[in-house]
Amino acid sequence: MIQGYDPRTGEPAGDPVPETTDAEVDAIAQAAAAACGPWEQAGPDGRAAALEAVASALDGAAAELVAVADTETALGTARLTGEVARAIGQLRHFAGAAADGGYADAVASPGGDGVPGLRRVNRPIGPVAVFAASNFPFAFSVAGNDTASALAAGCPVVVKAHEGHPQTSVLTARIVTEALAGAGAPAGTFAVVFGVEAGVRLLKHPAIAAAGFTGSVRGGMALAAICAQRPVPIPFFGELGSVNPVVILPGAAAARPGDIAAGYAGSLTLGVGQFCTNPGLLFVPASGGERLLPAIAAAVEASAGGPMLTARIHDSFSASVAELGARPDLAELAEGQPGRGPWSATPVVFRTGLAEFAAGLPGLAQEQFGPAGLVIIYSSVSDLLPVLARLGGNLAGVVQADETSAADMELARQVADVFARTVGRVVFNGWPTGVVVTEAQHHGGPWPASTAPAYTSVGAAAIRRWLVPVAYQDFPDQLLPAALSAGN
Amino acid sequence: MIQGYDPRTGEPAGDPVPETTDAEVDAIAQAAAAACGPWEQAGPDGRAAALEAVASALDGAAAELVAVADTETALGTARLTGEVARAIGQLRHFAGAAADGGYADAVASPGGDGVPGLRRVNRPIGPVAVFAASNFPFAFSVAGNDTASALAAGCPVVVKAHEGHPQTSVLTARIVTEALAGAGAPAGTFAVVFGVEAGVRLLKHPAIAAAGFTGSVRGGMALAAICAQRPVPIPFFGELGSVNPVVILPGAAAARPGDIAAGYAGSLTLGVGQFCTNPGLLFVPASGGERLLPAIAAAVEASAGGPMLTARIHDSFSASVAELGARPDLAELAEGQPGRGPWSATPVVFRTGLAEFAAGLPGLAQEQFGPAGLVIIYSSVSDLLPVLARLGGNLAGVVQADETSAADMELARQVADVFARTVGRVVFNGWPTGVVVTEAQHHGGPWPASTAPAYTSVGAAAIRRWLVPVAYQDFPDQLLPAALSAGN
Repeated sequence: MIQGYDPRTGEPAGDPVPETTDAEVDAIAQAAAAACGPWEQAGPDGRAAALEAVASALDGAAAELVAVADTETALGTARLTGEVARAIGQLRHFAGAAADGGYADAVASPGGDGVPGLRRVNRPIGPVAVFAASNFPFAFSVAGNDTASALAAGCPVVVKAHEGHPQTSVLTARIVTEALAGAGAPAGTFAVVFGVEAGVRLLKHPAIAAAGFTGSVRGGMALAAICAQRPVPIPFFGELGSVNPVVILPGAAAARPGDIAAGYAGSLTLGVGQFCTNPGLLFVPASGGERLLPAIAAAVEASAGGPMLTARIHDSFSASVAELGARPDLAELAEGQPGRGPWSATPVVFRTGLAEFAAGLPGLAQEQFGPAGLVIIYSSVSDLLPVLARLGGNLAGVVQADETSAADMELARQVADVFARTVGRVVFNGWPTGVVVTEAQHHGGPWPASTAPAYTSVGAAAIRRWLVPVAYQDFPDQLLPAALSAGN
Repeated sequence: MIQGYDPRTGEPAGDPVPETTDAEVDAIAQAAAAACGPWEQAGPDGRAAALEAVASALDGAAAELVAVADTETALGTARLTGEVARAIGQLRHFAGAAADGGYADAVASPGGDGVPGLRRVNRPIGPVAVFAASNFPFAFSVAGNDTASALAAGCPVVVKAHEGHPQTSVLTARIVTEALAGAGAPAGTFAVVFGVEAGVRLLKHPAIAAAGFTGSVRGGMALAAICAQRPVPIPFFGELGSVNPVVILPGAAAARPGDIAAGYAGSLTLGVGQFCTNPGLLFVPASGGERLLPAIAAAVEASAGGPMLTARIHDSFSASVAELGARPDLAELAEGQPGRGPWSATPVVFRTGLAEFAAGLPGLAQEQFGPAGLVIIYSSVSDLLPVLARLGGNLAGVVQADETSAADMELARQVADVFARTVGRVVFNGWPTGVVVTEAQHHGGPWPASTAPAYTSVGAAAIRRWLVPVAYQDFPDQLLPAALSAGN
């Protein structure tokens, strides 16, 4: 049984949810396979209408969803209300993408003179397994971005719910299933399974054609290995760990120490630090940063901790912080106010020098999931650049510069050039947290940020993960699929 | 040492080529890493000019290249002359793609009202390892499609030469290296390594960011596993095995048995059957096919074999044919004329019924690399469809129908619908061999046709394998890369 807990008390919350049995997983996977044809044939407009119906149903149940999720995650009603709205927005975004049909990328190369004519179009890859995240009970969970984008692409979806919010998952699944059925989606288009074993069995099932995952490096690599070792290997799109380096340039450090310190502490402690875009590494100049370090210390000291999502996440964070605290090459810069309850995390920031940091790689560049940061003091950007290049792939990298300083802007160019090769998103004078859902978004990056660096798990291009091309050679119009026969 | 052989005699041809040492592989990989920045900064026009220079240099040396390759492969001067032209055409195609810049897929999402603005662009993934194929000494070898597309994308390339044509590889490499240097490409942009161990070391080198491969399922899966198990996993784009099922519908079988038989025998024996698009499985109707089977037998009997590329390929083919010949569920339909020399293959076609074939899956749907075919006699298309759906992924699938027959066209729709889910390219009234290089081409397909079903190894979209996106958030114009700063 999967038991949810209230992170504020550590006590069980809601009824336990049974783990999905082997026979149930097999039946769900087979139903998804059977739904492939009908769901594709529902067409762009049919799928768009069904996604709109899901969005509306979630909207109607938003208050109930937030209440259940708040009990299971302690993320707070404000954040969770916003996250339900985000999930609804994502569903509507992909409903629009489905209706638009541009994802089909239809292209024709006319033949002639003995050269065959070809028309190519993207088709759904088949049933998709989605592994839900702990830290986004709506936006990256049962009805999250992977589900929305895969359904829009024409793929049936089977979600493996996260153990951290079982009742939220049950409720969301019921709403989604009913809305899809009401909109005429074929049976088998959507289902949820519960339990780690059920998730592994699902991933190994011959009917599953691709998988999406948001979570830890260790969990993601284990699932990636399963996908690679299947008798028929399948694509695995994992969004894994990230430390999201932030570089404060000398001009910026001198010009606005208070803003930077406040922005950093806010980004570090947002959602109790439980974001894959958390600013784990902050590079601060030795010269120019005289007022910045005290400002950071003050901002962190004023920040407050809170309950983490699960006991496991809390224990892992506590162990990481203890390990960092025991290192002779790090010193504690500041600690925030402790949160309440047994699973609470206290914000903490360590400091070290660039040489010590470089000597501690790759260990010091590993993600600590929670509100723990490391400030690294550098003497010159020319020393810093090769160290930045040695960090693993990251979802985001930030450079903070004084736009009125020509020296800062030239250094920013150099830092951005390194980030362009090592992170998925480069941010100027901002913070890594906050990933907007727009056409140009790229939420991915080189390993370990992602297992598939060409793909994004947020934004319009996320639908591309669930599509494969097929080319038709010398086909008569009457036999072509609709996306190709209408012309092009 | 890598010794080339003349397949017509089995005797050594040309001097042996030394295997690349560990130290040399490391130096080559590091030089490729060092070339990343300069080669990207050469810009679309600079790279286009360099690729044009390579194309012109190969054109100037075409006769010499063909002569060396004919000695090492016995593919014949006509085919090889065409293949050099194809390789040159591919280089020019990707020179055009580089200059055009559309591959950058630049897109902007303006911000405002607290929403950050984003601009996304594709960048080169980094140094690419290319594993050359045995059966295309030019088009999928040292200066083949993987090399051309990766260089165009802005990636340095290190080719692992195929053991089957070492002198052809040495000569091609010299021409490419000199042409690139003459065009001002940075040192390290291109190199070739020799030997299986060198190839494995190359693939494991931290500097390598992605790999392309054309070859067998076994070889490809071994390399894919190496890529997945690296400390930093990298994308692997393998084009593996394929049996390319061909379905002859009753109307077509009745209307043009002679044409079909001639087309089949021609496609099966082209290049001594050594194509990944060879028509390994031919499905023939029991009713309507009365004249087709004898016509096929006659066409195959009139066809001629020839020397295979390597002793290993020959031995493997001989063993496969012996194994098929010994099966009680298959009967020999026809045998062609033997070729000459110790490594010669003789065309052979077996026959069986649909039920026997289905019972023999998946073994009977495995690729036999060479001029061996299996004709499967089916009673009804409704029986055939589920069997087609059980075949593994294939590069191509063919349906042959009588366009004047409404019954055939309806059946063709049903067959094409199955193929659309199981093959990369569906051909109407043609043959699977012959893969044109055009915008709409898709040479890939579900596993084992490809290890990355969203990608093609032929045609304009092949460049996408070597690109990864990066998004710039709230960046000032002056710091954006050229592809983004000019507007968009």
